[in-house]
Amino acid sequence: MRILVTGADGFLGRGLAAVLAEAYPTARRLVLTDLVFAGQAPSGLETIAGDLGDQAFLEQLMAPGFDLVFHLASVPGGLAEREQDLGHQANLLAPLALARAAAATCPGARFVFASSIAVYGNLNGDTVTAETKPMPLLTYGAHKLMMETYLCDMTRRGALSAISLRFPGIVARPINDSGHGSAFMSHIFHRIAAGDVYDCPIPAASTCWWMSRKAAVSILLHAANLAEPIPTVVQPPVLHANLNAVCSAVERITGKQALMRWGNDGNLQRIFGTMPPLDATPALSIGFRADADLDTLAKAALSGD
Amino acid sequence: MRILVTGADGFLGRGLAAVLAEAYPTARRLVLTDLVFAGQAPSGLETIAGDLGDQAFLEQLMAPGFDLVFHLASVPGGLAEREQDLGHQANLLAPLALARAAAATCPGARFVFASSIAVYGNLNGDTVTAETKPMPLLTYGAHKLMMETYLCDMTRRGALSAISLRFPGIVARPINDSGHGSAFMSHIFHRIAAGDVYDCPIPAASTCWWMSRKAAVSILLHAANLAEPIPTVVQPPVLHANLNAVCSAVERITGKQALMRWGNDGNLQRIFGTMPPLDATPALSIGFRADADLDTLAKAALSGD
Repeated sequence: MRILVTGADGFLGRGLAAVLAEAYPTARRLVLTDLVFAGQAPSGLETIAGDLGDQAFLEQLMAPGFDLVFHLASVPGGLAEREQDLGHQANLLAPLALARAAAATCPGARFVFASSIAVYGNLNGDTVTAETKPMPLLTYGAHKLMMETYLCDMTRRGALSAISLRFPGIVARPINDSGHGSAFMSHIFHRIAAGDVYDCPIPAASTCWWMSRKAAVSILLHAANLAEPIPTVVQPPVLHANLNAVCSAVERITGKQALMRWGNDGNLQRIFGTMPPLDATPALSIGFRADADLDTLAKAALSGD
Repeated sequence: MRILVTGADGFLGRGLAAVLAEAYPTARRLVLTDLVFAGQAPSGLETIAGDLGDQAFLEQLMAPGFDLVFHLASVPGGLAEREQDLGHQANLLAPLALARAAAATCPGARFVFASSIAVYGNLNGDTVTAETKPMPLLTYGAHKLMMETYLCDMTRRGALSAISLRFPGIVARPINDSGHGSAFMSHIFHRIAAGDVYDCPIPAASTCWWMSRKAAVSILLHAANLAEPIPTVVQPPVLHANLNAVCSAVERITGKQALMRWGNDGNLQRIFGTMPPLDATPALSIGFRADADLDTLAKAALSGD
């Protein structure tokens, strides 16, 4: 088996890379790619640095064929909104070219795509189900939705066996990770653990969808190993909780007191802080799992998992 | 006002071109573009032949800026399914580049996009409404849906003022027009009028959505002239009728007897011949209109309108 991870030096990518050799002990090749690699890759893994938007690089990278591709590379939503050309290239044209190259060099390969709950846009308070109609409010979400549509079609005609996973903001990203509008969701873990005052941009009662990197990595691996027939788009289960409840969990895990000042950024709250409940029955029924509870989430987030 | 029509030498494009000068008597420029032009353009209209997929051509074409773009150019569904690279280029990459060039040279321009009911895919018999979730079953429909998503996002951020119109098969295309899976919908008009036996590939009771070119052109012009705030995706009203009822209308208009042999192509019937009723209230409420009735449709179809 030949496996490729894109965006492998990103937050989620590093988490996946850390367990990849263990998850696929008999893999013939385990390849990580990203624009650059800041640190060393886990042992047994090849790293190939380059830009997926560079057609020559892409062709060379993909030429050997991969049976399994985790496509995690992405320009985050806030940055993509400000830098439209960058987002267009990285979040739309590059994934299109990658998916085509994957299909051309290894027809029917499993292609696990990190989509985003940004596809939904303005949720009206009703429980999100498989019937909820996506209406993205950020270019980032529009690109993700376009890629979901594209990959569904490739799967329909057997070019790939693709699964799009709609991830929420994954916690806890490093404090200096930039470009994510949902950065506050990670900051609260780090700030409380450090005993710092945190000026959270939105109110304590704001409800978000939560997932640790550990849970996200398990979900990626589960998607990679699902037997046919596969669902083409999966909304994985998440924890649905307000910021206050998450702060309490962090207090319990760290023994520190949360020193929060709550802001009122209407735009951020509208996009990230008014998430309704989720009915993830379809994903649960095929074995996808969220973090067990908020304490488990907080523990994973703070341990760097 | 500067106006551009792409796919202007196609069936729908020629219909629009024929009324464009009359519809916009004070327009500063009326430009038609297509790969090639088989006939002469209506007087007062410029023709510029070239491939929208050729970046240099596209830039030159778009450089002056257009206040209004009708994007009709498209590789039809049957052909795009067989020739995936062609469809990818013509139905996805070229429209993406065109929309970006339109926005770059004339921010906020009205962009009228000929989308398709192929976005819906397998309808389950329930009335189609604004809530119906698109699930395309052809690459053609997937590309159209991706472009709808893209154009919605451009409109959201003010780059364009785009309207996607979900057209059914327009009748009656010339008998030699190829590549459309829905060709039978046009053939029945021509064959009955000619007194020929017609081997229709699907059964008489098959229900389709019908629209004459005359109605489609009115819908394009109405979309062009809609005041803000505009709907980003419009399902125009159509006539919902089975093949038998349409044959009867053609008999009434032509005075000929329909000599039909009905086939049983399950795939074609599933895609084109099992259309449920349509609730087009949102479009009707802002002035979009279908053909008045089947006789009006048949008359328009047979007159070449």
